[in-house]
Amino acid sequence: MSESARGGNPAPPRRERLRGRLLVGQSGGPTVAINSSLVGIIHEALGYAEIEGIYGMRSGILGGLREEFVDLGKENPATIEGLRYTPSAALGSSRHKLTPNDYDRILQVFRAHNVRYLCLIGGNDSMDTARRLEELGSTAGYELHVMGVPKTVDNDLVHTDHCPGYGSAARFVALMVRDTSLDTIAGALSTPVKIVEIMGRQAGWLTAAAALAKEGQEESPPDLIYVPERPFSIERFLADVRQTCQERGRCVVALSEGVHDEAGNFFAAMSSATDAFGHRQLGGASVYLSQLVNDELGLKSRFEKSDTLQRSMMVCSSPVDLNEAYMVGRMAIRHMMEGISGKMVTLVRAPGPGYYCSSGLADLQQVAAAERLLPDEYLDERGHPTAAFIAYATPLLGGLLPPYTQLAGYPVPRLPGD
Amino acid sequence: MSESARGGNPAPPRRERLRGRLLVGQSGGPTVAINSSLVGIIHEALGYAEIEGIYGMRSGILGGLREEFVDLGKENPATIEGLRYTPSAALGSSRHKLTPNDYDRILQVFRAHNVRYLCLIGGNDSMDTARRLEELGSTAGYELHVMGVPKTVDNDLVHTDHCPGYGSAARFVALMVRDTSLDTIAGALSTPVKIVEIMGRQAGWLTAAAALAKEGQEESPPDLIYVPERPFSIERFLADVRQTCQERGRCVVALSEGVHDEAGNFFAAMSSATDAFGHRQLGGASVYLSQLVNDELGLKSRFEKSDTLQRSMMVCSSPVDLNEAYMVGRMAIRHMMEGISGKMVTLVRAPGPGYYCSSGLADLQQVAAAERLLPDEYLDERGHPTAAFIAYATPLLGGLLPPYTQLAGYPVPRLPGD
Repeated sequence: MSESARGGNPAPPRRERLRGRLLVGQSGGPTVAINSSLVGIIHEALGYAEIEGIYGMRSGILGGLREEFVDLGKENPATIEGLRYTPSAALGSSRHKLTPNDYDRILQVFRAHNVRYLCLIGGNDSMDTARRLEELGSTAGYELHVMGVPKTVDNDLVHTDHCPGYGSAARFVALMVRDTSLDTIAGALSTPVKIVEIMGRQAGWLTAAAALAKEGQEESPPDLIYVPERPFSIERFLADVRQTCQERGRCVVALSEGVHDEAGNFFAAMSSATDAFGHRQLGGASVYLSQLVNDELGLKSRFEKSDTLQRSMMVCSSPVDLNEAYMVGRMAIRHMMEGISGKMVTLVRAPGPGYYCSSGLADLQQVAAAERLLPDEYLDERGHPTAAFIAYATPLLGGLLPPYTQLAGYPVPRLPGD
Repeated sequence: MSESARGGNPAPPRRERLRGRLLVGQSGGPTVAINSSLVGIIHEALGYAEIEGIYGMRSGILGGLREEFVDLGKENPATIEGLRYTPSAALGSSRHKLTPNDYDRILQVFRAHNVRYLCLIGGNDSMDTARRLEELGSTAGYELHVMGVPKTVDNDLVHTDHCPGYGSAARFVALMVRDTSLDTIAGALSTPVKIVEIMGRQAGWLTAAAALAKEGQEESPPDLIYVPERPFSIERFLADVRQTCQERGRCVVALSEGVHDEAGNFFAAMSSATDAFGHRQLGGASVYLSQLVNDELGLKSRFEKSDTLQRSMMVCSSPVDLNEAYMVGRMAIRHMMEGISGKMVTLVRAPGPGYYCSSGLADLQQVAAAERLLPDEYLDERGHPTAAFIAYATPLLGGLLPPYTQLAGYPVPRLPGD
């Protein structure tokens, strides 16, 4: 890996490194890869005498405030290794947002345990927390090295080619859409419409991955793809579904949970449904639109609403993703040992035809403040993913999907009866 | 395989077998294994000179009525072989119920193409169709050999130890519940409840498979399991969820889509929700109950509603299931070549500690008329699956799930601040 690829200038090697404990936390929505980053951090940290203990925070930064630590150095090495293939966040997670009211307490805890190195694995919010803690140390004159390790199935962090966790979730989405589409095709005579709802409130990266189920065949499902980067119109949606059914005898829709109209209204706001007890029914966009297709178009429709399964189904994980998640964990420690702090490790894709990815660095501040949506070059005029997106995403899934075959279907000529 | 295991007395070998075409159809909901049965049928049929062509019906028996046949003998052998790992029904499916009005037409088509052998792959309804066609041949004096090949993720056919398709769907359910449970545990501080909805309108076999996610640990999720074989009470459900959250800090629920109250009311009937446009919202039991947990218990709840993914996700398939599906396909042809007709091939588990399964035969008539629910010995007083069910189901999934590890979590003693 070249120095320039790291995205920053590492400090010159220090004669003597700061001695102290390393604290690790996992935040936000878990993924199948977030434990791989944890293992990378632990494995690398075990190689430095200056790191006098590796503690894990329970439930992200909440565990810091509550002083709920576990001693990761005491774990069986086979347990740690096994976490690379165990989904979800082994330390537990939270979405606690650190406020200035928390600063005294967290500093007190860090001092008491001589925490000198801190790694937070997470998305934007976690990077913001990491940034605050880095500043807190500087302001208080308490030497603390902080490093962010990226993780999000949303793939919406800036200054990194992609985010650990995304490739595996994208692989799940592609497999889910491909398999459920085949089911829809087989039964299209009775139920021609299928709406598959996909995670991503603001960014359509995960929904766009549904296009990988096409495997290069434009006529293959999903037939329609709706990402939040384009305004959603119920009228246009219904017209699209009707037309697709007329042309192809079926319509498989990949729908982002975050689609909204021009004014920014989500479906939860659009639908004011209540049941007999006065409870609001919140099934999500796919439930609502599926019913609408039934009622307005007279076409039988089903929906597929996998929830956290999208980010947790290990059997769908991308080996490329798991390996990169492990690598960014290791690199976070290596950079801290070089005296670097206040950065997030990034993934840097080498130019060229093959896929090769190394790591780099970005300022926590810059990462925390921004969100990366699908760029225009990845969406065509209909809002469907372009060939450029397919080229971008395919290697992240660990390559192509396992092959299926399809009957050529040689028709038998009809015969007159006797 | 012993003769007695076949469940019938094969006719003595015929000096000369009937010559004619073999017609194959797939019916009902597709599975990951139904194409394996098709391949088994094709592979076996290729070995008999009397079978003068292998035709596939498009969309089940509808293809018979419409004379929509494809010539499977012309397909590339690699395409056929690849179907063993391709989910859904390659020939298309339908749920058309044959009526006496159809009889003349179907007989006309069979005569025109000299169809003498017929295999239908499907569940109860398909076995009923097969039975009618067998009778039709007898009544009309048209020699037609008919064999049923079982397929259903519901596992509700009688006279067979289990049904091809079930093991793979059960494996999906176990993996889904295990993975999404780990996600729930990690985020239980903010969202402690997860309701996972599982297929099966009448029979709880697939929902019961969620218990395999426990891997023998009683305290592991799923915490609550509701099958249709036991009456469902919303009040008891809410009390169960509340108590589980108090005791375990989280509650993962495996919920059959078919749960109903003492009077037999499903949720679709219980909920009369309409939206602003007057459309009924049908999200299913999990959507409804998830909202109820939020509103009535003040506990944040999510739901997981995979739809046909449960029966189509090839990456979750059980190799045992795929192999058995292939075997019953082959055996259907072999038995027809022995002169047997009007039967369904069954799976017969050998007694003893290991798992070994051969095939047998059952009368189409008996299979078509009945439905096998979970027997009492497989459900305890709470309606949760027993150890006997676990022993029954485990080998069908292709054995244990891939291992995960869990931190021992050695607590770090709290220290006084400075």
